Amino acid sequence: MSIVVQKYGGTSVASIDKIKSVAKKLIKRKESGYDLVVVVSAMGKTTDTLIEMAKKISDNPSKRELDMLLSTGEQMTSSLLAMALKDMGYDAIALTGFQAGIKTEDKHTKASILDIEIKKVRHHLKEDKIVIIAGFQGIDENGDITTLGRGGSDTTAVALAAKLDCPCEIYTDVEGIYGVDPRIYPNAKKLDYISYDEMLEMASLGAKVIETRAVELGSKYQVPIYIALNTGLVTGTYIKELNESMEKKVVTGLTASDDDLMVTINNVLYNTKNICYIFNRLGEMDINIDMISQTAPIHGYVNISFTAPKESKDLIIDLVQELKRKMREIKVDIQEDITKISVVGLGMRTQSGVAARLFKVFADNDIHFKQVTTSEIRISYTINTTDKEKAIVKIAEEFNM
Amino acid sequence: MSIVVQKYGGTSVASIDKIKSVAKKLIKRKESGYDLVVVVSAMGKTTDTLIEMAKKISDNPSKRELDMLLSTGEQMTSSLLAMALKDMGYDAIALTGFQAGIKTEDKHTKASILDIEIKKVRHHLKEDKIVIIAGFQGIDENGDITTLGRGGSDTTAVALAAKLDCPCEIYTDVEGIYGVDPRIYPNAKKLDYISYDEMLEMASLGAKVIETRAVELGSKYQVPIYIALNTGLVTGTYIKELNESMEKKVVTGLTASDDDLMVTINNVLYNTKNICYIFNRLGEMDINIDMISQTAPIHGYVNISFTAPKESKDLIIDLVQELKRKMREIKVDIQEDITKISVVGLGMRTQSGVAARLFKVFADNDIHFKQVTTSEIRISYTINTTDKEKAIVKIAEEFNM
Repeated sequence: MSIVVQKYGGTSVASIDKIKSVAKKLIKRKESGYDLVVVVSAMGKTTDTLIEMAKKISDNPSKRELDMLLSTGEQMTSSLLAMALKDMGYDAIALTGFQAGIKTEDKHTKASILDIEIKKVRHHLKEDKIVIIAGFQGIDENGDITTLGRGGSDTTAVALAAKLDCPCEIYTDVEGIYGVDPRIYPNAKKLDYISYDEMLEMASLGAKVIETRAVELGSKYQVPIYIALNTGLVTGTYIKELNESMEKKVVTGLTASDDDLMVTINNVLYNTKNICYIFNRLGEMDINIDMISQTAPIHGYVNISFTAPKESKDLIIDLVQELKRKMREIKVDIQEDITKISVVGLGMRTQSGVAARLFKVFADNDIHFKQVTTSEIRISYTINTTDKEKAIVKIAEEFNM
Repeated sequence: MSIVVQKYGGTSVASIDKIKSVAKKLIKRKESGYDLVVVVSAMGKTTDTLIEMAKKISDNPSKRELDMLLSTGEQMTSSLLAMALKDMGYDAIALTGFQAGIKTEDKHTKASILDIEIKKVRHHLKEDKIVIIAGFQGIDENGDITTLGRGGSDTTAVALAAKLDCPCEIYTDVEGIYGVDPRIYPNAKKLDYISYDEMLEMASLGAKVIETRAVELGSKYQVPIYIALNTGLVTGTYIKELNESMEKKVVTGLTASDDDLMVTINNVLYNTKNICYIFNRLGEMDINIDMISQTAPIHGYVNISFTAPKESKDLIIDLVQELKRKMREIKVDIQEDITKISVVGLGMRTQSGVAARLFKVFADNDIHFKQVTTSEIRISYTINTTDKEKAIVKIAEEFNM
């Protein structure tokens, strides 16, 4: 029999009735001839509630104990789902992270999976049981319970599929992956396929459908990942290795992020030492800068711009004060109403002209961009947030997304 | 340093604020020079809520999965309490049943503890940590989570104290053990001491302060058990081995139970076969009979009475139908408004006259009793429930309880 790993997120198991529906769905799949390994998240907002309790105990709760507390959420769901299956006459077994042999680092609240003693799961599959596994958790070498961080259940599922050499299906509250956000561009088409690389570019840029780590793991072990609505009634999206020939589209996805601000430092005396100093200090202060641009020197002075997460704003203001003491002539401007628009597509590796078409879209529609960066399969622009919707719609139309 | 095991029940840890109060109490005790091992129950009504969830999934939920579900309650409390202690600057560690090395049988929902790998707890104590252990749970040899049944946290605490060879303190929502229920006899005095044997007689007769299994375990391993209000402000009761000389009282406790009914079978043809048949069938039907009485034969017929739990009523009615087919002359009477009054005291071993004093109390106050049974340290009577309060008050006065 073929094995498949399925994962159900918090909204799919948010109530007793929803857990029963998942059980029925599993039975249907089992009957169609599959061995099932099922990873579950905590019910609905359980994890948030547990975190609130911990925060009432301590502003900075012990991470080891926080992991022990949070892991109860998934343990509850897994036992309830196995109960439901048994009640419906199907053999099932619920396993916590440690019972499923999920070994992690001892980095509490954000541990990585080191290995899975998969023979435990295989043993139960051999006995024809539906194996239900508490997602998001594992055990470290001290025997302490660890958690994998938010969205960790995706990672649990993909890691299990990698070990079992089988596909992974992630059921969630979205219908799959769209090239463009349908809330902004209602004509957006759902993708049938997307490559790991494209998904990684899109995930890290703000498409919050699946954990980046899970996609990375899928890419590393070549696990086909299927993402679909938990009703199972609508075809979802496959994330898998694609060779260009399969892919007719030049551009697969378009994402927009308002998470960054742009800092412009005008009037910097142009010498390597000065510019190095600025970027060294940014590094030392752990400010994660992204797009960088620099004007050509005019009369020995340049303007430098970079983007950084809005949450670093306080640090940046500190740095600006420091820089002003050292370079008295500079003038600093911090712009918060900027948006980063990114266009992602495997096809960009082989087909040129995407940048040219994008520049034309911007010019035709009077959209000004401030910075451009490119990778092998991505081009990103910073624009004013006021132009965001227009840019998305016009780019989506241009590339028939 | 001396070690002490403490146990806090559900009402003592029912809220975040109560957990913080327990933490403060632990710190005070720690500061006074004790190594602490602390067993906690689930918060407030958590266990009931989890059972309700399971019942919504299945009328007869899988016991293995039920244990996995219920064990989360104590896991939550233990992690929150350890967090609170760490937040207050004291080193602590929370352990689940399996992390604490609590090995049990694989009898799900009512497992007995087989052994505790106590070196794990000792290791943490040596590092000067306050060790918080999730009560009520353990792990069987398959690596499955088990629970010890209702009140199992008492058993966890006493078993740990037995292994650590130290006393056990159980903090709860009662002030200690009373000889008589203060709700019925307001002058009732709290006992300073009670022996294991007396407590066992009283516990099985309806004084629901501590689990019988925990007292048995305490008796077997001679663990002194202290029961007190969770505020720690009122002196509680010690359960320990007592020699008679320590004990001035003849009668320690008086309990009343309305849990039984009394069956009288009148007009039974007196021969051994008939009477054997009745009691054989009661045994075969697993009806747990307690007090038995038989009148002297008159004209070759006798009347037989026995008490049995009210929950066996349906079974008894079935049996009566069966008996009537076999012994056509019998007439059966089932009385549900009876109360079993029991008087317990180590002093009864050596001091005679207790029965005589009790008979006088009954006679003086016009209380009729139907049956009497005795053990070495107990005398029990069945009376009409209408006489219950009068009997309790008059006996309590007679023995200055």
